[in-house]
Amino acid sequence: MKSSATLPGARDKLLFTPGPLTTSLSVKQAMLHDAGSWHFEFNAKVEWVREKILEVAGLSQGAGWETILLQGSGTFGVEAVFATCVPPNGKVAVLANGAYGERMALMLQHLRIDHLVLRSPENSPNDPAALDRALAGDKTITHAAIVHCETTTGILNPITDVGRVVKNHRRAYIVDAMSSFAAIPIDFAAAGIDFLISSANKCIEGVPGFSFVIGRRDALLACEGYARCLSLDLLDQLKGFDKNGQFRYTPPTHSLLAFEQAMKELEHEGGVTERGERYRRNQETLMEGMKQLGFIPYLDPAVQSPIITSFYYPDTEPFAFDAFYRLLSDKGFIIYPGKISRANTFRIGSIGRIFPSDINALVSAIDSVLKEMRIKMV
Amino acid sequence: MKSSATLPGARDKLLFTPGPLTTSLSVKQAMLHDAGSWHFEFNAKVEWVREKILEVAGLSQGAGWETILLQGSGTFGVEAVFATCVPPNGKVAVLANGAYGERMALMLQHLRIDHLVLRSPENSPNDPAALDRALAGDKTITHAAIVHCETTTGILNPITDVGRVVKNHRRAYIVDAMSSFAAIPIDFAAAGIDFLISSANKCIEGVPGFSFVIGRRDALLACEGYARCLSLDLLDQLKGFDKNGQFRYTPPTHSLLAFEQAMKELEHEGGVTERGERYRRNQETLMEGMKQLGFIPYLDPAVQSPIITSFYYPDTEPFAFDAFYRLLSDKGFIIYPGKISRANTFRIGSIGRIFPSDINALVSAIDSVLKEMRIKMV
Repeated sequence: MKSSATLPGARDKLLFTPGPLTTSLSVKQAMLHDAGSWHFEFNAKVEWVREKILEVAGLSQGAGWETILLQGSGTFGVEAVFATCVPPNGKVAVLANGAYGERMALMLQHLRIDHLVLRSPENSPNDPAALDRALAGDKTITHAAIVHCETTTGILNPITDVGRVVKNHRRAYIVDAMSSFAAIPIDFAAAGIDFLISSANKCIEGVPGFSFVIGRRDALLACEGYARCLSLDLLDQLKGFDKNGQFRYTPPTHSLLAFEQAMKELEHEGGVTERGERYRRNQETLMEGMKQLGFIPYLDPAVQSPIITSFYYPDTEPFAFDAFYRLLSDKGFIIYPGKISRANTFRIGSIGRIFPSDINALVSAIDSVLKEMRIKMV
Repeated sequence: MKSSATLPGARDKLLFTPGPLTTSLSVKQAMLHDAGSWHFEFNAKVEWVREKILEVAGLSQGAGWETILLQGSGTFGVEAVFATCVPPNGKVAVLANGAYGERMALMLQHLRIDHLVLRSPENSPNDPAALDRALAGDKTITHAAIVHCETTTGILNPITDVGRVVKNHRRAYIVDAMSSFAAIPIDFAAAGIDFLISSANKCIEGVPGFSFVIGRRDALLACEGYARCLSLDLLDQLKGFDKNGQFRYTPPTHSLLAFEQAMKELEHEGGVTERGERYRRNQETLMEGMKQLGFIPYLDPAVQSPIITSFYYPDTEPFAFDAFYRLLSDKGFIIYPGKISRANTFRIGSIGRIFPSDINALVSAIDSVLKEMRIKMV
């Protein structure tokens, strides 16, 4: 039998990943148009998208908030916040329990910004008490940065508890909400968030091409002269939007058109609550199905996000992940390798335009692959 | 009569801009798929695209060259070269005769890299003799940077003559070929180019989402530790491609799929020669038509590129460019405002999936708009 990969015109494989995700056909069809990046009709869409993101966040321009869209992946957005908003003598405390926290440290190293990293084990949430001690002991720390859903494992970090600590010490608070924004409600006021970063191709279910930063206008305006990189200068990007509603440099026009459609479909689904509810149902369906097959999840259910789940390799014998992955791919299902340093795991995402029925189909395919590979689970 | 803007389902307006451009329907249709960014099928496409770009450049991996794809607009690619490849005590000589040369200086300022700017008037090509004097007089200059086609005006700069000067002085040579690559033949050896930058949505006629840098592998490997920005670290990006064929961070998957199709269509058209020939015919058709209407081009024909042309405003009376632009837009044609500091001009691009017949339709629409606006040309 030919695998689906070799049959032209086959359906797209379903993506069970942390993004880029499976998106709706209508989102992709919105890209069948060429828009002029300088044109007023396109600028109106940019403005609509910027306001709509604030609405999803429960914020508004009237209340002093801005959305800054930035070309590139989510990483570009996070680094842009550091590159633009940390003053020359600033210092950042990074809370890390996975690859994305570590990546923040790497950014700060590249940008030559002073920083310290407060690490927790990959299966433990970030520790507000450790940050409290660090901030009390080091008055030169100006910013604290955290990853909301650390997709390395799928763990959900306590951004509100940590935010209270940050605000008690009157420091600025940066939240990487890449894979959680629009699926997990975030209370900006309660968490005292100054800058939050997410991207087009996560829970809003658009396609990749840009990230976005939500921040207070006055906080951004106070960063004049700090920027260490022109392309990633968020303040200059904001001034560009102010001036003529345009990106300073060529925007990913097609991604923006797709995102506009994705925002409409988010609203149609019922907003953040319903979107999050679907992902939770996806994740529950996944957990149940995988447990029945004998797989053991890496995280304690109490800290598991509805975004992505890590599972231990079957421990009955040496596990050939590559073969497992390829056989699933042949059946039309793309899963994700593990990223955890100290345990052999793979990951299955539950976000994107996928539904519990897709999860059931995936679990059933995994069952078949285990049989093909003659793997006996305990 | 309703304008085309208000009729849903109307055809897309034709873009006579320096990009994003009008692309073929088949290029856009390639985006109707969701690809897994970690998946081997997608990685194979990334690899194919990277090799194919070298082929278009007349280079090869075997001969020591690499293509590095980078998320973001062309500006991100140019800044990435500076951020990655200039050593800590390096100094860059920038040749500038327009906004894109000036933008290079702005990048270097943000990156805290020492530099000097050798300016020519906007209607004069960069001056190799001025660079020769500068390099002879300042041994601390490590790099020279130039813009091939400066779309501020549409002027074509003498990258080969300048390159000979750079090589005589044994410095590194950076060429921004954003809007010329794949339409104007570039001889890397004759010009002594070390790094060349272009982007997906220019003459290859893909959609925006990433830029690409062509450079020598050994030159890139020699830049270890220089990078001033993680997202823009080209060496790390190269190592990512080396390691597993992947972008380090989320790639614009749909833009990549569109680009793969665009590369096939470039080949089908007959490569750089035929693509450039079509653009030349477009530009000649434009010049003839506009001259017949009484418009005067800004540049001397000897230095005019086939990419984009600047025209003076009609000088019979105060010219309402906004009204002119909107009336053309209503007829389905998007032109571009001027960017020249000392003259009132507008610009018309001749690149993208447009043909002389489209140019004739544009010129005829301009004729109608002039009549509607009761503008009498001399």
